[in-house]
Amino acid sequence: MDQQVGKGSLCYAEAPFILSCASVVGTRESEGPLGDAFDMVTEDDKFGQDNWEAAESSLQKDALTLAIGKSGYTAKDIRYLFAGDLLGQDIASSFGLKNFEIPLFGIYGACSTCGEGLSLASIAVAGGFADRVASVTSSHFASAEKQFRFPLQYANQRPCCATWTVTGSGAFILGNKDAVKKQKGSPLAQITGITTGKIVDFGIKDSMNMGAAMAPAACNTIVRNLQDFNRNPNYYDRIVTGDLGKVGQEILIKLVGEQGYDISGLHEDCGIRIFDNEKQGTGSGGSGCGCAATTLAAYYLPRIQSGELKRILFVPTGALLSPVSFNEGQSVPGIAHGVVIEHCDEGEA
Amino acid sequence: MDQQVGKGSLCYAEAPFILSCASVVGTRESEGPLGDAFDMVTEDDKFGQDNWEAAESSLQKDALTLAIGKSGYTAKDIRYLFAGDLLGQDIASSFGLKNFEIPLFGIYGACSTCGEGLSLASIAVAGGFADRVASVTSSHFASAEKQFRFPLQYANQRPCCATWTVTGSGAFILGNKDAVKKQKGSPLAQITGITTGKIVDFGIKDSMNMGAAMAPAACNTIVRNLQDFNRNPNYYDRIVTGDLGKVGQEILIKLVGEQGYDISGLHEDCGIRIFDNEKQGTGSGGSGCGCAATTLAAYYLPRIQSGELKRILFVPTGALLSPVSFNEGQSVPGIAHGVVIEHCDEGEA
Repeated sequence: MDQQVGKGSLCYAEAPFILSCASVVGTRESEGPLGDAFDMVTEDDKFGQDNWEAAESSLQKDALTLAIGKSGYTAKDIRYLFAGDLLGQDIASSFGLKNFEIPLFGIYGACSTCGEGLSLASIAVAGGFADRVASVTSSHFASAEKQFRFPLQYANQRPCCATWTVTGSGAFILGNKDAVKKQKGSPLAQITGITTGKIVDFGIKDSMNMGAAMAPAACNTIVRNLQDFNRNPNYYDRIVTGDLGKVGQEILIKLVGEQGYDISGLHEDCGIRIFDNEKQGTGSGGSGCGCAATTLAAYYLPRIQSGELKRILFVPTGALLSPVSFNEGQSVPGIAHGVVIEHCDEGEA
Repeated sequence: MDQQVGKGSLCYAEAPFILSCASVVGTRESEGPLGDAFDMVTEDDKFGQDNWEAAESSLQKDALTLAIGKSGYTAKDIRYLFAGDLLGQDIASSFGLKNFEIPLFGIYGACSTCGEGLSLASIAVAGGFADRVASVTSSHFASAEKQFRFPLQYANQRPCCATWTVTGSGAFILGNKDAVKKQKGSPLAQITGITTGKIVDFGIKDSMNMGAAMAPAACNTIVRNLQDFNRNPNYYDRIVTGDLGKVGQEILIKLVGEQGYDISGLHEDCGIRIFDNEKQGTGSGGSGCGCAATTLAAYYLPRIQSGELKRILFVPTGALLSPVSFNEGQSVPGIAHGVVIEHCDEGEA
């Protein structure tokens, strides 16, 4: 069976399973609508560390430790690790994960990194190159502000269209049929296919309006997914983007509509779900690698496991800018990685 | 046949081919020992761009364009792109490659990124997930100095153990048997296996001595490769690291020796080969994602294609630091990705 579908999608002959997952978040996330659903929350956004970058590393370490533990396996059973974050040179991952001693593929897709990690991890398992792999991503409000915007001490005002970087990390353990047999508990879901993102640049130059910069990339990936698999949008129970926020959501629904698909009743966004923007003052919504990852782990996967949702198209979205490219007057190109996540019946595993 | 070998290696049942490659470099590289072997050299290290980052993007664009052209295919025939660089948020890749419209996996492994890209690209082809893929990486002396060290205008002195970041980009087109049949010319080589790197941290804190920081990671990957495949070092005609330089080479040979393997007669380093350090004042040797990539493309692959070298273990080496982690007093962990590259007989394709 040819697993290559259309121009940039894969349909797995043997769909990998998500064996377990874990989410670790900061204080603001714990006070939001999903507060009770996360595996671990903190009262100290520095997680006992000396600086914000080390705090973010600590998030990744905790998330991966929890996810491995929940699968019933140990770090030695994990063949490859796919990990990334928003910081220059992926340092949250490098320093957070070094003690696991698992062969590592460092990845970067800005806030879409969670989708990229799940894509590559599922490729490794589906191709027979690993029985069990892990994917972990993170973001931290304070390390991201320092990296991309202003020092926190500067207390700058933020436009309403700005998003709020989630302090959080989500980790996922993927495995094949054999891995399911020996795991603790039941698998959460299966990844049945992917649609890999292209860089899409509409020339947006406002780094405070990421939703607008990323919506065209999300549209590109969603439409290619529907075309490659020859599906209608309502094949999915939900189409879930990563962190477009309210501003980006409006643009996305309009852009996808122009391509002939109505996703207005199906579309949700992790950035809108994770915060109560009115009450929490989080602008257009949450963002960051940690936003899509923790919302998938805490909110969507339990509903897919229970069968409340049969299948979703999960589309984390990323803005491919750096402080240097922004200061040099470059635009903010976007990318979005699509992952088809489906309910698995007990019998399938 | 089980393709999973040992603890972190893969041995492909159907080894992907390197269909073509290309190298583009700056002035200093063109004046070095490999000057005549590169596909494209420049007299202007800014490559006609306004800034160093855009110059590096231009390198990637040219290298990928050339490599695709040499394969006889077009950008539309390339299913996935694996790309990365040393800059924060991988901007050299994002801006350099956006016009190709090829689905992109952004990767980060510091100067080992070329090995990581070839590894993931070979996984995609060997698993039947793509008929043709591309891997491209780059570095630029001036953008790297600005990112990691000092502005060029500051004209700082450099210790002898420091390496010199290569201005260059190397691109590789990989494909399966069918892709070989329709390619222009003959394939250059086959990737028969990989050994994926772990993060290894010996606590080195001197960002001017990358060779020492990366040698333990290279040792870890080389020794695991030999153990996983149950091979002696002389199974390989050469064991080629990325950018350890003279200082790192000494440490590597000693460390691998302590593990019971003598690689003193086999070891070469792209960073030592690409410059004439004495004449060119390049310290311990060349470094950067572009160092291993351009040296593989310009020097090693032609020799593997001709059969002068039957097989090499190619081990690009990376130092996982950022300016932030360095300024916060963190150590410099290393990582090294091993790729087994072999001569292919005409009949095999």
